[in-house]
Amino acid sequence: MAKTIAILTGGGDCPGLNAVIRGVVRAAVLQRGWRVLGIEDGFDGLVEGPRVRELDLAAISGILPRGGTILGTSNRGNPFAYPVKIGTETKLTDVSSRVLENFRKIGADALVAVGGDGTLKIARRLNDLGLPVVGVPKTIDNDLRGTDVTFGYNTAVGVVTEALDRLHTTAESHHRVMVVEVMGRDAGWIALESGIAGSADVILIPEIPFDIQRVCDAIARRRDGGNRFSIVVASEGAFPLGGGKTIQLSAEKNLGVERLGGIGRFVAAQIEGCLDMEVRVVVLGHVQRGGSPSPFDRILSSRFGVKAVELIEQGAFGKMVALQGRSVIAVDIDEAVGNLNLVDPHGELIRTAEALGIMTGR
Amino acid sequence: MAKTIAILTGGGDCPGLNAVIRGVVRAAVLQRGWRVLGIEDGFDGLVEGPRVRELDLAAISGILPRGGTILGTSNRGNPFAYPVKIGTETKLTDVSSRVLENFRKIGADALVAVGGDGTLKIARRLNDLGLPVVGVPKTIDNDLRGTDVTFGYNTAVGVVTEALDRLHTTAESHHRVMVVEVMGRDAGWIALESGIAGSADVILIPEIPFDIQRVCDAIARRRDGGNRFSIVVASEGAFPLGGGKTIQLSAEKNLGVERLGGIGRFVAAQIEGCLDMEVRVVVLGHVQRGGSPSPFDRILSSRFGVKAVELIEQGAFGKMVALQGRSVIAVDIDEAVGNLNLVDPHGELIRTAEALGIMTGR
Amino acid sequence: MAKTIAILTGGGDCPGLNAVIRGVVRAAVLQRGWRVLGIEDGFDGLVEGPRVRELDLAAISGILPRGGTILGTSNRGNPFAYPVKIGTETKLTDVSSRVLENFRKIGADALVAVGGDGTLKIARRLNDLGLPVVGVPKTIDNDLRGTDVTFGYNTAVGVVTEALDRLHTTAESHHRVMVVEVMGRDAGWIALESGIAGSADVILIPEIPFDIQRVCDAIARRRDGGNRFSIVVASEGAFPLGGGKTIQLSAEKNLGVERLGGIGRFVAAQIEGCLDMEVRVVVLGHVQRGGSPSPFDRILSSRFGVKAVELIEQGAFGKMVALQGRSVIAVDIDEAVGNLNLVDPHGELIRTAEALGIMTGR
Amino acid sequence: MAKTIAILTGGGDCPGLNAVIRGVVRAAVLQRGWRVLGIEDGFDGLVEGPRVRELDLAAISGILPRGGTILGTSNRGNPFAYPVKIGTETKLTDVSSRVLENFRKIGADALVAVGGDGTLKIARRLNDLGLPVVGVPKTIDNDLRGTDVTFGYNTAVGVVTEALDRLHTTAESHHRVMVVEVMGRDAGWIALESGIAGSADVILIPEIPFDIQRVCDAIARRRDGGNRFSIVVASEGAFPLGGGKTIQLSAEKNLGVERLGGIGRFVAAQIEGCLDMEVRVVVLGHVQRGGSPSPFDRILSSRFGVKAVELIEQGAFGKMVALQGRSVIAVDIDEAVGNLNLVDPHGELIRTAEALGIMTGR
Repeated sequence: MAKTIAILTGGGDCPGLNAVIRGVVRAAVLQRGWRVLGIEDGFDGLVEGPRVRELDLAAISGILPRGGTILGTSNRGNPFAYPVKIGTETKLTDVSSRVLENFRKIGADALVAVGGDGTLKIARRLNDLGLPVVGVPKTIDNDLRGTDVTFGYNTAVGVVTEALDRLHTTAESHHRVMVVEVMGRDAGWIALESGIAGSADVILIPEIPFDIQRVCDAIARRRDGGNRFSIVVASEGAFPLGGGKTIQLSAEKNLGVERLGGIGRFVAAQIEGCLDMEVRVVVLGHVQRGGSPSPFDRILSSRFGVKAVELIEQGAFGKMVALQGRSVIAVDIDEAVGNLNLVDPHGELIRTAEALGIMTGR
Repeated sequence: MAKTIAILTGGGDCPGLNAVIRGVVRAAVLQRGWRVLGIEDGFDGLVEGPRVRELDLAAISGILPRGGTILGTSNRGNPFAYPVKIGTETKLTDVSSRVLENFRKIGADALVAVGGDGTLKIARRLNDLGLPVVGVPKTIDNDLRGTDVTFGYNTAVGVVTEALDRLHTTAESHHRVMVVEVMGRDAGWIALESGIAGSADVILIPEIPFDIQRVCDAIARRRDGGNRFSIVVASEGAFPLGGGKTIQLSAEKNLGVERLGGIGRFVAAQIEGCLDMEVRVVVLGHVQRGGSPSPFDRILSSRFGVKAVELIEQGAFGKMVALQGRSVIAVDIDEAVGNLNLVDPHGELIRTAEALGIMTGR
Repeated sequence: MAKTIAILTGGGDCPGLNAVIRGVVRAAVLQRGWRVLGIEDGFDGLVEGPRVRELDLAAISGILPRGGTILGTSNRGNPFAYPVKIGTETKLTDVSSRVLENFRKIGADALVAVGGDGTLKIARRLNDLGLPVVGVPKTIDNDLRGTDVTFGYNTAVGVVTEALDRLHTTAESHHRVMVVEVMGRDAGWIALESGIAGSADVILIPEIPFDIQRVCDAIARRRDGGNRFSIVVASEGAFPLGGGKTIQLSAEKNLGVERLGGIGRFVAAQIEGCLDMEVRVVVLGHVQRGGSPSPFDRILSSRFGVKAVELIEQGAFGKMVALQGRSVIAVDIDEAVGNLNLVDPHGELIRTAEALGIMTGR
Repeated sequence: MAKTIAILTGGGDCPGLNAVIRGVVRAAVLQRGWRVLGIEDGFDGLVEGPRVRELDLAAISGILPRGGTILGTSNRGNPFAYPVKIGTETKLTDVSSRVLENFRKIGADALVAVGGDGTLKIARRLNDLGLPVVGVPKTIDNDLRGTDVTFGYNTAVGVVTEALDRLHTTAESHHRVMVVEVMGRDAGWIALESGIAGSADVILIPEIPFDIQRVCDAIARRRDGGNRFSIVVASEGAFPLGGGKTIQLSAEKNLGVERLGGIGRFVAAQIEGCLDMEVRVVVLGHVQRGGSPSPFDRILSSRFGVKAVELIEQGAFGKMVALQGRSVIAVDIDEAVGNLNLVDPHGELIRTAEALGIMTGR
């Protein structure tokens, strides 16, 4: 009997989502003769509706190099705490039984859940409730455990590095400091790797609260040594020693003229305060999440998609695909969720950055 | 007798400056056997010092694809109003005689001045005072008259368009508005052309004061028509109807936590005010000025450099090289300076944008 | 009464075709409330079938940055000499009456024909026969008259320049010659402009039959002067002095192991014959025709599409859109067809190349 | 006492060589106060001369994003079999004692040898003879053992993938086959990974001798299924079943009009022989070896350079830096040399390709 599987993508955007979908469909439909159903807008499409469409070979034609996800995604759709309107109020309600019912309704034998920490936690709970799930890890910030790296991250590092390359040539013409704010709420991987690749002078990450005085001193030393400019890369989640994460959070929640404006502007203002130099800010924002995935991310995504179908074939539910060394393997979803994969403040990568002469905020 | 010519680059950075320098050196040294002297940091290198170095073929090896300028540049260096410290005060002083003297000292027969409105005005005055000058127009914003286009602009449009391409794929996943702040203090060319190339939904330029209510209405119509996202591109010099340019200026001068933060954040806050949608801001800043010049800019810069040497050979001083149609020609520097090349609010390009369905703020 | 217009794309691929189609549809459907019909595979879709599909706003969503053409194209489809099978033979037959009949059948009021010399000639003849046509010029080689430049060309120059940039860094490590074969059957624009932008040492174009001995001498001089490498860019239509175009044509028609292999390999073999240096060949082929159009090409294509609809509105049939200086205007199709826009062997661009020290085969 | 170390780069070009050099210099000079000497043109600079120059911080300024190697390289320079002219004959002679002597002469305490199989073998023999060596693995083809991946490879895959992306849009317009010849003498990694990333239809690699009839059948099936085009990626070292590697070798050695022309043209001719379709060939050649290293390669190279200095500090001679999983570690040079890292014809990556529907020649 032909199998039917379903797939959904959850959480924020990430280059490579379409490549995962394509890998799943090709491995299922083309190689095995199964059917694949695409669930729209993450778990929302199973809570509501169900909103589902057939993913045949035509549906995935040409999507490999495209950013975004043809299935849509959702940040809010946690079926165990779903915003339900009761009268005029909205209350977070457990609607997981509706998800299970809808899943039966669409007639699928298993679900591929592509997403980050939140999506994978939900997937595991649904798996415990009897909905057979295989996970595919996704995080642009590279902060998931259990896998050496996730797709999308390589693309994001590429976007930031290109911006840093451009800043290098223009920064030279005046005594000037450039502050580049990049993604990374909890983990500083993007700032750290793109900072190394793009030859930043200062890298500020959430894992190492920064001492602004030392940052200013480092920039001053560069200037006094004849360097015309300095480039600072700051994770959006970086924060000053003693400052706590409030700065970043307040910026996050309240976008507006009277309010803070992100760590980039904060650091810029601090540097202008302690040094008499022009400071300019670049905020790359969602540019880092979009666009065609890099070849690395396309390959990894394709391998993840193909492997997910293999795991379903083997009945390895509750598992998640992962890259370890050169191999794509299966790990328990539990290994990935709960704890984040953070930069080790004393690990090889930070030490490499410091050996290269990069100031890391301490 | 072998000729000696000097060259300087003034004003802000612009991809293609090195290609102009290379064109001048190759046409002068290689083709004519002349000497070329490079003046450092714009007119500063003639007020001070003189700070000058020989530009032989080795000095320009490999610089064609490099952003920035090997000669450095200066924004402040107006010899007719030069900041001179007298006691504890700094006073703007006419030091043009020092420039003329230093120019005689270095023994050059003519000067190639590469720069924007400011640099070219100075060049023309110096030419009137007997220093033989040929101008090469430069403006990343494309706001100089007398030439169809200047180098650097094509590269900048490319940077913004790539960012817009990336935003398109990621914007789709949520109901969301993206505001991208781009260069263009007085002229909206970069916003307009990259907005067309990158399929923006709204383009706000200094030449058309925008009606924020109409902007919100346009975005609401898109949302109600089923579009998940809208992309707004705003020149840094754009301003609201009745608002005046004060918004932008105050942001410009005073970077700091408590203050405004540029037109991008202003527009974002306004849209959040009138629509219940998430708004995200991207500020590309100096990323637009840097990096390797596009092929178009490399060719135009090379042609400009070669033509400048031809003009010197012909004794056509007080002239500036320019592109008109397919030809690089000479025009009077006077034609370029004084009045800006602005977007015609009723011209073909704006009408094309509107025919494509782009909202232009009115 | 609402107007209905049709559009077709003919000839070889060219980045920007989709942008033209989108410009036509947006200006017609969105701005004017007209209908647009897309004819498939160039004139073939009017000879056969007719094969036609509605182009509404959904049909063109997202196509601006995509290479190729959603309508397909045809190289053979000349309705005045169409290959018709009669018995076992294929005979070129005038089937233009069928085109006129099919055009009436689909109920369109006018046709936008996007194509090169061949397509535009057919368009003009059909216009003379009473089918109201507006032309949009297209040629990757930039060899059409009547317009300063056509879309696609800028993208192609970009592809070649990027390849030349890459070759520069790797060529340096050994005494070696790199020969890069690029597009340009009759006109050398791509070789010439990308050669200038990518700092080629030798540029060979169809307009200047090359003297292989002088080419070898130039490379030898470079080597003896301490340069480790030389880069030769050759148009596919370049040919040696006295050699005639036979070399290139025989390569063109008959691809196979025993046969020639294109001008790139020919030049490489010749250089290996006269100099004791390693020679390597790069053949970029159709890579130059594909991929996302550059911002320049997207804007130009969009303007062309919008202008074509304006011309139909004005009843300006038999005209073609064109770029002259900064303006998109209308010219008679006659101005574009028949004679090619070739590189002037004594014009400013070649002289610029030579002033930069580039050897041009003579 | 301050240490002095030397560094050389051997073998073919590879993006990231400069980043390794920079990593070594920064870690040695900046962090440890050592001196670094750069040996020119691989081992040649130790056989001759010695040709050596000081690598201080200024010498490596700005080289991180640059392709090639500032030190030059050599393919021939095996000191154990060095071409020495004796009378009119050239004889391969063991000149290793001269290398040891010259190394003593320049006063270095240890050598960092960056190179592939050949360079590393030499390095290990010299280490056995008492010259303290640390190796850094380099191979554009990714065919070295002992490390998960080497720098340069990611960049090469990027170049090929971009070309394939371009071909996709243009291939669609006619019934046509595109054959792309890529690097990979012995190992098919570049063809395989870029083929997956660029959505090739057929991938031919040296590890799987191809059956041309099956290749033709696969293309015919695609055509009959309505696909307008097929893209074939072939490693330069791919060869037909029963054919042996002679085809490729004869093409390699003898470039010329009358001769073969590489596997690309061979495959194209074969396909034209069995199918009535147009076939076009793209030969990317050295474009794959050049240009700015990708962020991935810049980071890996920097880590390798920093780690090499650490190994010297620890006295871990005869070792080579390597990436395993997420860590840069040390392995014996012996682990890397002698046997190649080939694609496993039954491994996960090939199976992924086949699951995606790619034909692999068998």
